[in-house]
Amino acid sequence: MSRWAVVLAGGVGSRFWPLSTPARPKQLLPLVTAQPLLADTLRRLGPLVPAERTLVITNATLAAAVAKLLPALPAKNIVAEPKSAGTAPALAWAAAEVARRDPAGTMLCVHADWAIGDDAGFRAALERAAEAAESQRALVTVGVVPTRADPGFGYIRPGAPVAPPARTVERFIEKPDRATAARLLEEGCLWNSGIFVWRADDFLAEVRARCPEVAPALPHAEQGALRAFFEGCRPISVDHGVLERSAKVLVIPGDFGWDDVGTWAALHRVRARDGSGNAAAGDAHLVESHGNVVHADGHTVVLYGVDDLVVAARDGVTLVTTRERAADLKALVDALPPEVRDR
Amino acid sequence: MSRWAVVLAGGVGSRFWPLSTPARPKQLLPLVTAQPLLADTLRRLGPLVPAERTLVITNATLAAAVAKLLPALPAKNIVAEPKSAGTAPALAWAAAEVARRDPAGTMLCVHADWAIGDDAGFRAALERAAEAAESQRALVTVGVVPTRADPGFGYIRPGAPVAPPARTVERFIEKPDRATAARLLEEGCLWNSGIFVWRADDFLAEVRARCPEVAPALPHAEQGALRAFFEGCRPISVDHGVLERSAKVLVIPGDFGWDDVGTWAALHRVRARDGSGNAAAGDAHLVESHGNVVHADGHTVVLYGVDDLVVAARDGVTLVTTRERAADLKALVDALPPEVRDR
Repeated sequence: MSRWAVVLAGGVGSRFWPLSTPARPKQLLPLVTAQPLLADTLRRLGPLVPAERTLVITNATLAAAVAKLLPALPAKNIVAEPKSAGTAPALAWAAAEVARRDPAGTMLCVHADWAIGDDAGFRAALERAAEAAESQRALVTVGVVPTRADPGFGYIRPGAPVAPPARTVERFIEKPDRATAARLLEEGCLWNSGIFVWRADDFLAEVRARCPEVAPALPHAEQGALRAFFEGCRPISVDHGVLERSAKVLVIPGDFGWDDVGTWAALHRVRARDGSGNAAAGDAHLVESHGNVVHADGHTVVLYGVDDLVVAARDGVTLVTTRERAADLKALVDALPPEVRDR
Repeated sequence: MSRWAVVLAGGVGSRFWPLSTPARPKQLLPLVTAQPLLADTLRRLGPLVPAERTLVITNATLAAAVAKLLPALPAKNIVAEPKSAGTAPALAWAAAEVARRDPAGTMLCVHADWAIGDDAGFRAALERAAEAAESQRALVTVGVVPTRADPGFGYIRPGAPVAPPARTVERFIEKPDRATAARLLEEGCLWNSGIFVWRADDFLAEVRARCPEVAPALPHAEQGALRAFFEGCRPISVDHGVLERSAKVLVIPGDFGWDDVGTWAALHRVRARDGSGNAAAGDAHLVESHGNVVHADGHTVVLYGVDDLVVAARDGVTLVTTRERAADLKALVDALPPEVRDR
């Protein structure tokens, strides 16, 4: 009945173009510290869970890069999804894996690509969540105390206290508009962060009972048949497929500088800033410039007399945009010719 | 009594950093067309003067690059100044060289690093200037009809008509403040462009009579002793050292889209612009961006949702500034660490 970490590291995406590529997505980029986000994540969990009890769920494209980045991680702890099917199948597979090795094990589920301002506070919240999960036999989600009315997240409205600080979940709320987000903030709702803690067997029981998209494939997971399992699942998120359908969900609040680092502009929040409010990394030289985000990877970037830009450069290509526009790079990347986009 | 071209190509400078370097100054950069400015200059003069009668005055650092760029130019027509001494010694040396080869030759003197919008108009103005110089035995300067009240140039106030369109010069006016520049524009003053036309022997006579900084060294020039000549001169410009002291100067107006391409921002005037007012060259991709100048040399540049910037990139380094700030890069370049500045 040990605690296990399950790190979801399968993400792809273009929000950190031109640095992020299919072969080097966000979680493998050193966006916040000098280490890639995935390495930061394991370092952060280290005092709570050793590498032997850490599972990293990734995909076939990235498995070798993950293994290289995390030499302390046993090879069998890297799970390469044969196809992307959402978080419910990924966590069900991980639960079956934990249950096989440790029938009463608890899973601390996190994503590989977050920034956390207060690592100790993060670990303390995971421990409180694990205590609630184990004592109440509940599926516990950590709701992050919001710092702004952000329409980019789902929200959780907490209900009655159960085992303080744990409360029931009155309602999961999909990404709201900006005005609704402001109201939810005032009313004490929490961000649905994607931090989940539960006993593997409890989660598997809820999947079996509530999630027909995954349940029929569970015998494959119990037998360790990876490909058959994922081919037997219909894609669905754990929120839609399990949590919103379950009566066993509790929420505890967390306040530890969580940031999902969703865009280049987010680096302005999570990185150390210089006296002029610039968040720069790499060989960057900023003169009479304010409020910029610069990421210079193997290429020198010089800014002179410019404000609130995002400049991201690597060998061969430089992107110049604004912090505001950086929130929506997909439209840009789709507009670029393939030979530039996929460079 | 042929006509010769004398092209001043010794300039150095940091105004096109990071593209311009001591080994590759502005005149060797393809800033306006796909060819370096110096090559543009010789192509433009071609219908007027063959390569055999074209002298290029440069410095020892650049002589090999100039020879490589201009294979049609006879090696003896490249003059490598042993030290920079201003335009009076450079043109005096060129005059002595022309006079040795062609005692009644006329020199059409231009700089290697200009943009010209109307090549035929430029050549026609040089021909008119040559006719005036030869018939009046005068030192003729082509005054460019100003298109804006620019405080960055010296001005010429024309005087009485002599041999139309040639007029006397009432006064040379140093770089004015902005208000004075506006007044000079209204009063019909012309930009002192640095386009000079005269017989070599007439210019040498004026140097001998008016320019003690250069005159004592002239015997070295007549004997072809390059180093001795330049070491014997005190540095001085042809404007201060000869023209402002001479009674034999005439001016003719010229209107042919002359631009001295003084800064990155000037490229916005002299380059073709896209429908959004961007002047871009190289592998540049601009999306929802307006009024920018982009120069991408061996590096891809992508702009998204930004306006009125200058982005200049080459292998290894990208500069991001504004069109306004690009007028004053010296302060920036001085602020950079040497390993960045001199990369």
